[in-house]
Amino acid sequence: MTATPVSSNTEPLDFDSLVLLLEQVFLRHGTSADVARTLALNCAGAERDGAHSHGVFRIPGYVSTLKSGWVNGQAVPVVEDVASGFVRVDAANGFAQPALAAARPLLVEKARSAGIAVLAIRNSHHFAALWPDVEPFAYDGLVALSVVNSMTCVVPHGADRPLFGTNPIAFAAPRADGEPIVFDLATSAIAHGDVQIAARKGERLSPGMGVDSLGQPTQDPKAILEGGALLPFGGHKGSALSMMVELLAAALTGGNFSFEFDWSNHPGAKTPWTGQLLIVIDPSKAAGQSFAERSQELVRQMHGVGLKRLPGDRRHHQRAKSAAEGIRLEPEVLANLRELAGF
Amino acid sequence: MTATPVSSNTEPLDFDSLVLLLEQVFLRHGTSADVARTLALNCAGAERDGAHSHGVFRIPGYVSTLKSGWVNGQAVPVVEDVASGFVRVDAANGFAQPALAAARPLLVEKARSAGIAVLAIRNSHHFAALWPDVEPFAYDGLVALSVVNSMTCVVPHGADRPLFGTNPIAFAAPRADGEPIVFDLATSAIAHGDVQIAARKGERLSPGMGVDSLGQPTQDPKAILEGGALLPFGGHKGSALSMMVELLAAALTGGNFSFEFDWSNHPGAKTPWTGQLLIVIDPSKAAGQSFAERSQELVRQMHGVGLKRLPGDRRHHQRAKSAAEGIRLEPEVLANLRELAGF
Repeated sequence: MTATPVSSNTEPLDFDSLVLLLEQVFLRHGTSADVARTLALNCAGAERDGAHSHGVFRIPGYVSTLKSGWVNGQAVPVVEDVASGFVRVDAANGFAQPALAAARPLLVEKARSAGIAVLAIRNSHHFAALWPDVEPFAYDGLVALSVVNSMTCVVPHGADRPLFGTNPIAFAAPRADGEPIVFDLATSAIAHGDVQIAARKGERLSPGMGVDSLGQPTQDPKAILEGGALLPFGGHKGSALSMMVELLAAALTGGNFSFEFDWSNHPGAKTPWTGQLLIVIDPSKAAGQSFAERSQELVRQMHGVGLKRLPGDRRHHQRAKSAAEGIRLEPEVLANLRELAGF
Repeated sequence: MTATPVSSNTEPLDFDSLVLLLEQVFLRHGTSADVARTLALNCAGAERDGAHSHGVFRIPGYVSTLKSGWVNGQAVPVVEDVASGFVRVDAANGFAQPALAAARPLLVEKARSAGIAVLAIRNSHHFAALWPDVEPFAYDGLVALSVVNSMTCVVPHGADRPLFGTNPIAFAAPRADGEPIVFDLATSAIAHGDVQIAARKGERLSPGMGVDSLGQPTQDPKAILEGGALLPFGGHKGSALSMMVELLAAALTGGNFSFEFDWSNHPGAKTPWTGQLLIVIDPSKAAGQSFAERSQELVRQMHGVGLKRLPGDRRHHQRAKSAAEGIRLEPEVLANLRELAGF
């Protein structure tokens, strides 16, 4: 993939066509049909919604990882019913999304029955955006929170060497008169994918995002990627949240911490082999007015104090635009995907 | 209370004496014995642990609030067993801490049985630090997360007027060879109590903490307190977390949003009348090595990358120091407490 800017003569694809193309890429690189479908929907959805750092930009990383033998693209997740509010999944060294899909019906059933339920995914690889994991729960009227740890690239506040991953937190909640309220934030000052994109484009970063290989502050994305590291967002507070993500996504699932796996024998491996936690709450158990009416009221008040755009609004806008106009990819990117698919 | 600096000739009190003194202050201002005991332990604990913005500094605010009739110091919380993982409490316009205390046995029982449980407190006043609410769960081997919303004083990122409260998030987790890992962070750039303390001391704040009554950035704590507002920590990310706290602590409990209550008819009222959510997880349900061993390993690695102090370390250090040397209060502060207690 080269740094050609997006131009108006790129070829638009409809969503289903992009899904099929990506599905074929995954299948051709050794995944099962189920895994191919799940990952293709996820990746195409991110691209459609304008989340480019987690869209087709990720495909070369998926492919090189599959080629390296680091991840099992044929893994069959094993769901364990542990307690009335607790589900575990052993992702069997496969991707996290098929593990979530396998456990989802049981998780939803428990959340509706117990009022809250937790899904602890371990032995899993997460290489995608986190919001697609929580958003569907909000469409089902549930509130969902998820955390996933990744790979050592963030220096804890007050430390001098990296330890944490970018460790995102995603949240989704239904509302009465609109799309769900959804956010997905890396606890690093910048997402790793955005550093990669800036490096590819030759752009400099804002101050406070990262350090170079000597631990000195830098605005050069290449210096961060080549032996440097990221900083947490918001100083000691973001750092505390990143630590919490390690504890919830790894210690509480039985997955690896961001610093525990060793992929040095798998050149090309890009997918962190860690864990993921989801907490799902049924707001119909709450007292008072319906949750969706209440969240709608909060949104109304947020607009009332001058907020133009809610978290998630840009994605929904881009989603509608993609549905109307198709998804535009750079010609080189599309050509590369077709080559990877053998089309 | 005046701005006299702490001097070496202040009088040390042992913890139990401070608790009794505060208990008498609460009792004398109309609380029940149960409420007095709970709040006195909470407030004395914060003072003992060096959390001065939530220690005896808060007593005049409690007293003026009780005098104003805004809060019911005699309230008897009503615990509702909603589902196998869901407990609700109507705090009956009383304080949140007695409501938590009343529901705690049922909450712990459910967390151990279901693997996870949620406590939704509504119709409650929270005027204290949040970490004392979660820390005890970690001593019982459980992982706990809590959020509480407060009162409109934070401008959402991208808005121009305040809406959110300081909306803290607190987390506690056990570890094998040491005190629990505990943090408590306001999603505002600075806690309201710390602005009050800076104003009292005549100190200026760091940039990025707040705005004046015209919405302009200011470093003057008085300008923030007199018609100004705070900013969220970490820009749009802290703002998203603050929004999440509103949804979890108010919409999901049936409590007020930070902007919903009107205390204008209760001059002297200082305690936000909102809601609080706690999520408690039993890590013994997790796969693999024990959680406390895993969290201990994370701590070991954090020290390994140069981290000197964990979240909570300063509190534990101060707690030990207070146990050995007693708790030192400014003479005027102690005199004022004795007067309020009628001693």
